[in-house]
Amino acid sequence: MIEEDLRKLLNQVHNGSLSVDQAVERLKNLPFEDLGYAKLDHHRVLRRGYPEAVFCEGKSNEQIKDIVSQMMKQNVNIVATRANEKVYDALKDLPTEVEYHEKARTIVIKQQSISKVLGKILIITAGTADIPVAEEAAVTAEIMGNEIERLYDVGVSGIHRLLAHKSKFGEANVIIVVAGMEGALPSVVAGLTSKPVIAVPTSVGYGASFGGLAALLAMLNSCASGVSVVNIDNGYGAAYIASQINRLIAEG
Amino acid sequence: MIEEDLRKLLNQVHNGSLSVDQAVERLKNLPFEDLGYAKLDHHRVLRRGYPEAVFCEGKSNEQIKDIVSQMMKQNVNIVATRANEKVYDALKDLPTEVEYHEKARTIVIKQQSISKVLGKILIITAGTADIPVAEEAAVTAEIMGNEIERLYDVGVSGIHRLLAHKSKFGEANVIIVVAGMEGALPSVVAGLTSKPVIAVPTSVGYGASFGGLAALLAMLNSCASGVSVVNIDNGYGAAYIASQINRLIAEG
Amino acid sequence: MIEEDLRKLLNQVHNGSLSVDQAVERLKNLPFEDLGYAKLDHHRVLRRGYPEAVFCEGKSNEQIKDIVSQMMKQNVNIVATRANEKVYDALKDLPTEVEYHEKARTIVIKQQSISKVLGKILIITAGTADIPVAEEAAVTAEIMGNEIERLYDVGVSGIHRLLAHKSKFGEANVIIVVAGMEGALPSVVAGLTSKPVIAVPTSVGYGASFGGLAALLAMLNSCASGVSVVNIDNGYGAAYIASQINRLIAEG
Amino acid sequence: MIEEDLRKLLNQVHNGSLSVDQAVERLKNLPFEDLGYAKLDHHRVLRRGYPEAVFCEGKSNEQIKDIVSQMMKQNVNIVATRANEKVYDALKDLPTEVEYHEKARTIVIKQQSISKVLGKILIITAGTADIPVAEEAAVTAEIMGNEIERLYDVGVSGIHRLLAHKSKFGEANVIIVVAGMEGALPSVVAGLTSKPVIAVPTSVGYGASFGGLAALLAMLNSCASGVSVVNIDNGYGAAYIASQINRLIAEG
Amino acid sequence: MIEEDLRKLLNQVHNGSLSVDQAVERLKNLPFEDLGYAKLDHHRVLRRGYPEAVFCEGKSNEQIKDIVSQMMKQNVNIVATRANEKVYDALKDLPTEVEYHEKARTIVIKQQSISKVLGKILIITAGTADIPVAEEAAVTAEIMGNEIERLYDVGVSGIHRLLAHKSKFGEANVIIVVAGMEGALPSVVAGLTSKPVIAVPTSVGYGASFGGLAALLAMLNSCASGVSVVNIDNGYGAAYIASQINRLIAEG
Amino acid sequence: MIEEDLRKLLNQVHNGSLSVDQAVERLKNLPFEDLGYAKLDHHRVLRRGYPEAVFCEGKSNEQIKDIVSQMMKQNVNIVATRANEKVYDALKDLPTEVEYHEKARTIVIKQQSISKVLGKILIITAGTADIPVAEEAAVTAEIMGNEIERLYDVGVSGIHRLLAHKSKFGEANVIIVVAGMEGALPSVVAGLTSKPVIAVPTSVGYGASFGGLAALLAMLNSCASGVSVVNIDNGYGAAYIASQINRLIAEG
Amino acid sequence: MIEEDLRKLLNQVHNGSLSVDQAVERLKNLPFEDLGYAKLDHHRVLRRGYPEAVFCEGKSNEQIKDIVSQMMKQNVNIVATRANEKVYDALKDLPTEVEYHEKARTIVIKQQSISKVLGKILIITAGTADIPVAEEAAVTAEIMGNEIERLYDVGVSGIHRLLAHKSKFGEANVIIVVAGMEGALPSVVAGLTSKPVIAVPTSVGYGASFGGLAALLAMLNSCASGVSVVNIDNGYGAAYIASQINRLIAEG
Amino acid sequence: MIEEDLRKLLNQVHNGSLSVDQAVERLKNLPFEDLGYAKLDHHRVLRRGYPEAVFCEGKSNEQIKDIVSQMMKQNVNIVATRANEKVYDALKDLPTEVEYHEKARTIVIKQQSISKVLGKILIITAGTADIPVAEEAAVTAEIMGNEIERLYDVGVSGIHRLLAHKSKFGEANVIIVVAGMEGALPSVVAGLTSKPVIAVPTSVGYGASFGGLAALLAMLNSCASGVSVVNIDNGYGAAYIASQINRLIAEG
Repeated sequence: MIEEDLRKLLNQVHNGSLSVDQAVERLKNLPFEDLGYAKLDHHRVLRRGYPEAVFCEGKSNEQIKDIVSQMMKQNVNIVATRANEKVYDALKDLPTEVEYHEKARTIVIKQQSISKVLGKILIITAGTADIPVAEEAAVTAEIMGNEIERLYDVGVSGIHRLLAHKSKFGEANVIIVVAGMEGALPSVVAGLTSKPVIAVPTSVGYGASFGGLAALLAMLNSCASGVSVVNIDNGYGAAYIASQINRLIAEG
Repeated sequence: MIEEDLRKLLNQVHNGSLSVDQAVERLKNLPFEDLGYAKLDHHRVLRRGYPEAVFCEGKSNEQIKDIVSQMMKQNVNIVATRANEKVYDALKDLPTEVEYHEKARTIVIKQQSISKVLGKILIITAGTADIPVAEEAAVTAEIMGNEIERLYDVGVSGIHRLLAHKSKFGEANVIIVVAGMEGALPSVVAGLTSKPVIAVPTSVGYGASFGGLAALLAMLNSCASGVSVVNIDNGYGAAYIASQINRLIAEG
Repeated sequence: MIEEDLRKLLNQVHNGSLSVDQAVERLKNLPFEDLGYAKLDHHRVLRRGYPEAVFCEGKSNEQIKDIVSQMMKQNVNIVATRANEKVYDALKDLPTEVEYHEKARTIVIKQQSISKVLGKILIITAGTADIPVAEEAAVTAEIMGNEIERLYDVGVSGIHRLLAHKSKFGEANVIIVVAGMEGALPSVVAGLTSKPVIAVPTSVGYGASFGGLAALLAMLNSCASGVSVVNIDNGYGAAYIASQINRLIAEG
Repeated sequence: MIEEDLRKLLNQVHNGSLSVDQAVERLKNLPFEDLGYAKLDHHRVLRRGYPEAVFCEGKSNEQIKDIVSQMMKQNVNIVATRANEKVYDALKDLPTEVEYHEKARTIVIKQQSISKVLGKILIITAGTADIPVAEEAAVTAEIMGNEIERLYDVGVSGIHRLLAHKSKFGEANVIIVVAGMEGALPSVVAGLTSKPVIAVPTSVGYGASFGGLAALLAMLNSCASGVSVVNIDNGYGAAYIASQINRLIAEG
Repeated sequence: MIEEDLRKLLNQVHNGSLSVDQAVERLKNLPFEDLGYAKLDHHRVLRRGYPEAVFCEGKSNEQIKDIVSQMMKQNVNIVATRANEKVYDALKDLPTEVEYHEKARTIVIKQQSISKVLGKILIITAGTADIPVAEEAAVTAEIMGNEIERLYDVGVSGIHRLLAHKSKFGEANVIIVVAGMEGALPSVVAGLTSKPVIAVPTSVGYGASFGGLAALLAMLNSCASGVSVVNIDNGYGAAYIASQINRLIAEG
Repeated sequence: MIEEDLRKLLNQVHNGSLSVDQAVERLKNLPFEDLGYAKLDHHRVLRRGYPEAVFCEGKSNEQIKDIVSQMMKQNVNIVATRANEKVYDALKDLPTEVEYHEKARTIVIKQQSISKVLGKILIITAGTADIPVAEEAAVTAEIMGNEIERLYDVGVSGIHRLLAHKSKFGEANVIIVVAGMEGALPSVVAGLTSKPVIAVPTSVGYGASFGGLAALLAMLNSCASGVSVVNIDNGYGAAYIASQINRLIAEG
Repeated sequence: MIEEDLRKLLNQVHNGSLSVDQAVERLKNLPFEDLGYAKLDHHRVLRRGYPEAVFCEGKSNEQIKDIVSQMMKQNVNIVATRANEKVYDALKDLPTEVEYHEKARTIVIKQQSISKVLGKILIITAGTADIPVAEEAAVTAEIMGNEIERLYDVGVSGIHRLLAHKSKFGEANVIIVVAGMEGALPSVVAGLTSKPVIAVPTSVGYGASFGGLAALLAMLNSCASGVSVVNIDNGYGAAYIASQINRLIAEG
Repeated sequence: MIEEDLRKLLNQVHNGSLSVDQAVERLKNLPFEDLGYAKLDHHRVLRRGYPEAVFCEGKSNEQIKDIVSQMMKQNVNIVATRANEKVYDALKDLPTEVEYHEKARTIVIKQQSISKVLGKILIITAGTADIPVAEEAAVTAEIMGNEIERLYDVGVSGIHRLLAHKSKFGEANVIIVVAGMEGALPSVVAGLTSKPVIAVPTSVGYGASFGGLAALLAMLNSCASGVSVVNIDNGYGAAYIASQINRLIAEG
């Protein structure tokens, strides 16, 4: 429609029904984003099949259903994180298939086919308690078209468990490392590979872990180069940037 | 040499001067890293021309000179960050050419030629006070073979300055965004591009910026997907991971 | 009554039944506020129709009802913030009409007509999750006589959404910007307008948002001039000061 | 120039040397800010005589001189905050008159005459140690055209000192309250007036004042409505928003 | 009994059945507290009728009942703080009279008559939400024999409310000031009196009050001399030390 | 003078040159503090010989001299804390005798004789490094007329050192306990006495002492009743409130 | 099995069916931990009867049962901490005997007999509220074969209670000291003994105890040498290291 | 002498010159520590050759010399930590030999021969910047009679460096692990050994390391059992407790 308006204006200029001066004035005052800006941005999302995300924690099931229903009209894929059984119950009768990934506490609604990316993302956790965050990352990365390799429960208190699978580092384009408590694992992994490491601190721990702050600080202060960090428990965010990198490498 | 030791042992097994049982026993007790592990790791550094880093702040000039001299024997490239004129004076008579990048507070010693990477890294700063950290990143990324594009002083208080150069986002493989104060810039940039954003909080600011903590927290809590964060003022670290990503894409 | 006491005393001085010395002594010892001080202050509230506020969170419904009932005797307007359905149930049978604004989690009891203010307050939110705080501000500002314009869900991760409505900035006298997570929006808005911006950090976010601390620090460290900040989630407070400013401008 | 480009394009459309389709395509790709956006913004600054600010702390005198010289080319007024005698020495030979306000630690360079604002800003401090921050606000507000009234050293430990001057509250359009230590003064002032209060916490204090954090938190948690807060020691920022409000009221 | 043991030993020395050397050895190894130390301490508590305290929060009703029953055997008075209706239900059938002070969330069990203290303690609150903590102090101080004067809801946002009752300050020996939010009241009170002020920060507030931290810091940084501070919400602790002071003055 | 004004007004009422209505109006608008309020307050300070305090840290010697000179005109005693040799040099030629207490980093200027208080204040330190703060308290308390008893270096790591002097607790009216590091000493002392304990955390310590925060928190969380706390390193403040208590007891 | 693989390879080298070069290549690529590394580590656990631990808080009963069932297959002893009655209900029908230690909130499953250690561990608490953490330590240390001595409720507010049992310090090899609130007890204990003290801060307290932070900081800043610290409420961790020390001493 | 006093008293009882009643009275009032308590404690220090410590940072050279001179009179060994060349200059002419350990920033004064302990303490650092703290520990442990093994610069970013020397873990009785930045090393070490690990966080790092806080939190939250922690940079404290443990094992 914007484009039509613009075309109409230019036609008027062309046929003389609008003077050049008048056209200049109107173009200067047009909100620039009406020049297709927003739509382009939206197109990008659609073209890639990248999902829109809903963070469920702290929202009522009704609110979640409303938001998801709105999003569905735009025909995008949807990832609802921090969801539980009850959220799933509220969504499962929506007209499109709704997948509930219990371990990931994540609901996926696919409305677009996903173009596969060739490269692989390796997702590592320090402990079993970090798995929900890792699975949120895995489910998110999968709907973005990535192949996922999982390497769970290989924390630094038993370093041989990690070392035994070191060969997997080389097979991935990006490595997501999920760890709570002392958050040491990303430093060790980054020291063993030249692949970029996206570190996800988790709120796993107690006492002076302060809800994941200890792990977060440790990761920011990594003595190993090649580590960058996302927010505490932010599996979705880690998957998103890892996916961007992986796609760029695959499309390299 | 290790390989030689191993070869010798296997030859002894082959010619019967060492029994299989004895060989099993000796192999089980060999420190595993003697199996060429460490050396491979070292080779990787050399092959890539990746630099070793020295953090100068809080070290005496004598200490810095000692460390750099040691490193030079390994024939690697060296990046000395947080350096000043006096550090340069202490190092400039070393046998290899020593470059002092004043704005970057960084000294570079090249002993290896650097294999160029095709892709580009875009480095953006919010203000002029963030430039030293950005230049630390730029100098580091350059010695890692990357082409750098700079876009400085385009903070969110004058968002049009940033928008005017939005086209540069698409030309880069990775974007490093350096910002102090409220640390909002990475969120805005990530909302405008699908390229991965490495955010560097700086200690620029005062009062309740708490030495960069405000910017750090803002970046970790970015409402835009596609942002990951390194430590406060860590230009070197941002350049390192950006370089890893850029090289993987270029070699993709 | 105080005034009557004072008048009586002065009459006694006038007619000589109280010496000047005695009168001086008694006046020096009069609690000063008995000189009409408190009452004047109270008059100001009444004259303007400014509401008294009750913060419901952490109070029992009985306590809230008691407080509101007390306030009603003073014939003032009342705003009860952080209210829910159950608080409404407890209050709805009070003798005056009780409005429950669900999205704003706010209850309004109007006992005074409100003198309208000519100017407009623009209320902006970064995300949909910030809307309850924004609505608390809106409901509060409305009962203070202001005209409200809402611009919701225009956060910095999609800066074009904000820019598309930039013209609204000029139409308002004051702008309230409500944002959680990285709290970047007030900086961007302030950079685009010369109107005063009242920033409200919200507790929206998780992990290292630390209950709104990240957004609060970001707003205090805004690189744009023209921003001042109220407490986390304090929609009421933002509306109050915005209303003061708006009324002063309107009455200019 | 941009306008010229646009005019040229439209003339081409008008005379048929460019098709409407081609023109649509080119207009969609024009950076929007080239449509006069930035320039308008710049005009606004010039028209008002609002100053550009330089924060001197942590910059070398050479850097400050460079920045100021650049700014001077744009013919704007300049406020250099956190300056000292030595900064003044570095700047005093610049071609325009350079005023050094020692108590305010602020340097002012006037290149534009300032349009006076009719209303008054009242600046209050709790103690004498808060005066430098208050003076930074005063000098800044003055160059923005405001009339300033000072009320210093009237902290809450001697509440009568404040009450003695309560009549001044009514004469101002906005009140800036500067306080360190326990930061209680803005709450008391706001309780005594219906004018908007801009609170400035200062780093005055020791021990558990944590560089102004105690005062900052106190102000954010003010029990009195009508208070909003700027960053610790940010006299400039307080003056800026107070000035915006004052001008709007005066121009009301 | 200890004394008897000692006496027996000395008798043995006296009559020669124990050598001086043996006695020296045994005395050196005697636990010193067996010399009546602990008992004296216990006597002091009993003699004064000072209560033992139980902090109920986070304890099960069974645990509370057990602890209280144990204490009752020592025939002391008992104050159970942070109690609720259900705790009272669990305790009310104990053999001694159990008083439940609902507003104070405090249960009192008197087993000893209390010697009255002549002086008065004044308890002031900033708001109504601070009353539970103030009442905890009041109930505690009463069982310690003090006369209590209450002055509630006189916070600094309406300073005249406080000033109207300034004469009460002179009538008390000690003043307890209870305040949440910005915690300014103790500074104002201390500035108006020469009586010692015990400040109690409360967790009343939200957002950046951080559970009372803002008020606590404000009180520690009071610009007025004559203020000392107890823990957040610690009405009991304030009453205890105020009571010690009051008794010393009364007995002075 | 104020009184004269009042007297004049009342005379006018008396002789009919001012109507009662007019008088009422003028009295209502009289600043209340003009009714002798401030002066009474000032008188109280003078009568007691209580000192005015200057905090020297962060002030230039010229500023200190100016402040002290101003104060001297009011003929009060003066305590300048955090002073050093150079401050003393700047002040020693003032017309009144200036005493420099080096260990206390405190300068005293006596212009008023001090009325002695009968009771004693006991000042205890945990370590030798806490002595400067303790001496600041001692010097302050002495100029307020108190008798001081010192008990230094009796920290809890050698609890017998403290216990050996336990008898001193009973001889004092108030006990000031000064401790850094883990701040445990006030809890132990309060457990051994029924005298009020004023705890002063010091910034003595390193690492996780965070400039005295560890000691401060420990003292606020004392398991012993009868402890209240002043700011970190605030020897002056502790002495002030201890002195208030001691005087009240002595005058009891 | 690994050993068999290695033996097979060496046999092939010996009989010439594998060249030395081929063998070198394969050995270099063998995951080193396949050389019996992991197994040795596992053997160590089994040999000692050291338990594996499960942290129950935040896990569903089903998850806990799954984890415990997996662990049971390895025939190790198991300690499940932060357990409650319901966790016990979920586990009690497992094929091995399941002991629920209610006070310790800990479940123990013994599948291995425990070799007794000769030395004793003394566990001390400051208050009764610290007992659950102490019992977690006690139960853990017992299943590790240690003899436990308990000394509970001897906090520093009644120092004589501790001193009365000082002789017990000498009988233990290691002392675990558990304390919340001000966390002073470890300092006092360490000052009275030459045995190593493992300090456990607890989250017992309120207000400015910040969930055990106050106690933690106090313990880290202990003025007494010979104290080291584990995480808040980490009874298990304290028992583990105390047990390591005790066994080493016993086996000395 | 105390013992003599006691003996004299008992002799008086024995010969009847003091009645049993009088003796009981005097013994009850004797400060208990006069019963040889303090002396025993002191004897213990002497017997072991354990040093007294002086923390030099923040003390003038004169103060240090005074303290050391006092200590020397007691004929103990002395460790002065955080010393520099100038401290050494101030002390080197003392009558006993003064050793300055530059790397350790530690001065040692031996006045007592040290009884050697058989077992070994292994001291590990993550980086070269952690060496000063490690050397403080080494020098301290040596003067306590321990044999020291050093393993420096084996941080987790190059995990093979650590693994290459894993065999050293078994040869030590206790392991001190010194690390800054992300503080991960103690977790890895503890996972590889059954020896107790004393972790020392260092202030090495920048930005979000917050002076060692990041490393401290990481160590407290170690996912590996068998770690306990001392204060930031507290090499002395780690050595002290390690030495206690080592001696107990050796004497075991």
